[in-house]
Amino acid sequence: MKVEKNNEDQEVSTSDAVEAFLADSPVSGEVVADAVAAFIERHRSSGNAAPSGRAGPGPGQLRRPIVVVTSGGTTVPLERRCVRFIDNFSAGTRGALSTERFLEAGYAVIFLTRTGSLQPFSHMLPAADPPEVIDRVAMLQSAAGGGGDGDGVVIRPEQVEAVARVLRAQQACREHGTLLTIKYETIFEYLTYLRLTSELLRPLGADVMFYLAAAVSDFYIPWSQLAEHKIQSADGPLELSLQRVPKMLGELVNKWAPRAFAVSFKLETDQGILVHKASTALHRYGVHLVVANLLHNRKDVVTLVEPRGAAAAAAVPDGPAAAEAAVDETEGVRTVVLRRPAAEMDIERLLIQEVAARHRAFVLKEAVQQH
Amino acid sequence: MKVEKNNEDQEVSTSDAVEAFLADSPVSGEVVADAVAAFIERHRSSGNAAPSGRAGPGPGQLRRPIVVVTSGGTTVPLERRCVRFIDNFSAGTRGALSTERFLEAGYAVIFLTRTGSLQPFSHMLPAADPPEVIDRVAMLQSAAGGGGDGDGVVIRPEQVEAVARVLRAQQACREHGTLLTIKYETIFEYLTYLRLTSELLRPLGADVMFYLAAAVSDFYIPWSQLAEHKIQSADGPLELSLQRVPKMLGELVNKWAPRAFAVSFKLETDQGILVHKASTALHRYGVHLVVANLLHNRKDVVTLVEPRGAAAAAAVPDGPAAAEAAVDETEGVRTVVLRRPAAEMDIERLLIQEVAARHRAFVLKEAVQQH
Repeated sequence: MKVEKNNEDQEVSTSDAVEAFLADSPVSGEVVADAVAAFIERHRSSGNAAPSGRAGPGPGQLRRPIVVVTSGGTTVPLERRCVRFIDNFSAGTRGALSTERFLEAGYAVIFLTRTGSLQPFSHMLPAADPPEVIDRVAMLQSAAGGGGDGDGVVIRPEQVEAVARVLRAQQACREHGTLLTIKYETIFEYLTYLRLTSELLRPLGADVMFYLAAAVSDFYIPWSQLAEHKIQSADGPLELSLQRVPKMLGELVNKWAPRAFAVSFKLETDQGILVHKASTALHRYGVHLVVANLLHNRKDVVTLVEPRGAAAAAAVPDGPAAAEAAVDETEGVRTVVLRRPAAEMDIERLLIQEVAARHRAFVLKEAVQQH
Repeated sequence: MKVEKNNEDQEVSTSDAVEAFLADSPVSGEVVADAVAAFIERHRSSGNAAPSGRAGPGPGQLRRPIVVVTSGGTTVPLERRCVRFIDNFSAGTRGALSTERFLEAGYAVIFLTRTGSLQPFSHMLPAADPPEVIDRVAMLQSAAGGGGDGDGVVIRPEQVEAVARVLRAQQACREHGTLLTIKYETIFEYLTYLRLTSELLRPLGADVMFYLAAAVSDFYIPWSQLAEHKIQSADGPLELSLQRVPKMLGELVNKWAPRAFAVSFKLETDQGILVHKASTALHRYGVHLVVANLLHNRKDVVTLVEPRGAAAAAAVPDGPAAAEAAVDETEGVRTVVLRRPAAEMDIERLLIQEVAARHRAFVLKEAVQQH
């Protein structure tokens, strides 16, 4: 019954597994589907607008490119009324910062994010829980002539600029409708929302990018096999048997949104297998770019892994300092190592420059092929 | 080799298991120990102060009672460089609100809390991520005669009172040094910090309460058995064998702080076993009170479960509306069902009234026995 050696069988088998997974999922995506449909409509051209820097879109085409940024880690419930679950570590920093950079680069962003993980513009504020954030940006100001309940509150002078930036950034998103935030918790929610989003975006073709930075669970227990109530601890050690989550990446690239530009991520702790793992994802699922990073230095170094024949669309003007390109003959890939410039707070500006440049090249190539 | 039927053997075995667990733990508690020691010192009497409502404490005794509130859920790493872990669902609402009520009731609080879970005073602010909180409490105010970078920021008039309350609450804690927050993530951190805290508090006897609202993992993989690197997903299904976490509650009550007042929690999803599970904890570990609650209505109803002979120290003036007391003959316990009064936002005010009344009765009884 092993089908590992037979690619065609395996593909059918993966498709079936994906369908079975989603059919077994307890999540309804209706509200999310409505929100995504409205978001797409807002960014479709009515045929009038032609923003600077892009060729004027025809009616029904996008006035600005859309990127789906996924962020945070998915959970796997161990009980139906979920008390215990398996979680994937991810603060969501990559996704939140990348979202800000994509907005700056003129994208409309669908941000599929884990509840409680980092949100765009958060990093401009003190990294703390809400009451402490308030304590650090605001202060009491006694009313003239008496204290007590009549206290006023003002923003601390040294925080006015940071708070104003956060407010302006959110205001801009609201005005232009460029940020749609969708929150998930479980792997069932994540994959249901991702599929319906990609299927709604399919007609928009190459103008759409998927930037899949979420840490997706590899193992799960099917909903139909989950215990209704909390697992009782009195009965000795706990043996858990988890099944592989079917790989959705190939489905997304080949079926759900086959003309979109797809970027996936590889996070490892072992440098020795990083490029190999990234190359495997590239070859196996047909994504256009893999952003490979190591847990311990992921904020300072990322490695772009792309097909060897990929157009060298580097956006970085003068390479070596920030980016080192090479060809890995063994894996048959091109790698570009990006390092955080010393003057930058984060590596995401550089990363999104590079990613967006590749997306533009992809869109152009697609347009040429169609004519 | 089964020792289940032999209580003495079992006790030795549990003690050994606890010691082995802590010895295997990778956590050093030095920084936490220093903070707790300084906190205790701050609340010890120098022999001068005698706050209202309590008999004047002698030198070295506490000027106000101390409660250790534990909150949030512990994680169990599945890898040493932790990417995947098992988590226990707990927003930390109970612990955060209870902390506020304990502060109001004159306690000094050591708040042992999971990173990212709810903090005291948070509920006074909009329930949202930090950038959205800022957006909802503050707004841009254009500088007279021109917009742009010179924008000022003010608190929205309708939010001034809420923000002022949060600031005043935190200011009061700072001024009186009544709140020490210690953050944990893993079960190793939680139990290491809890033990060192209880051992430092031991000399203070009955004036100390443990209010153990954290959702502590029941199963774990010993640190020494954890894989160094991320579990690879290519090798078929994942079989996990988790060991029982040794029960620390009995150790805390009997050895670490044997004269303290101990309150533990039982959260279940199945009403049918709730009082039985709570009674078992009461009898097995010797805690003084168990707060039993169901996942689906835990914000509206809690059941206090205490030894049948416990002094009926109810603080609630007129019972039936908010509290129903009964004796459960089968389990040999007294139960008091508390319901959130319609006029209250939360049930914690009532709960902490009841708990603090029992603690006062406990302190008095102890004082009588010593004289």
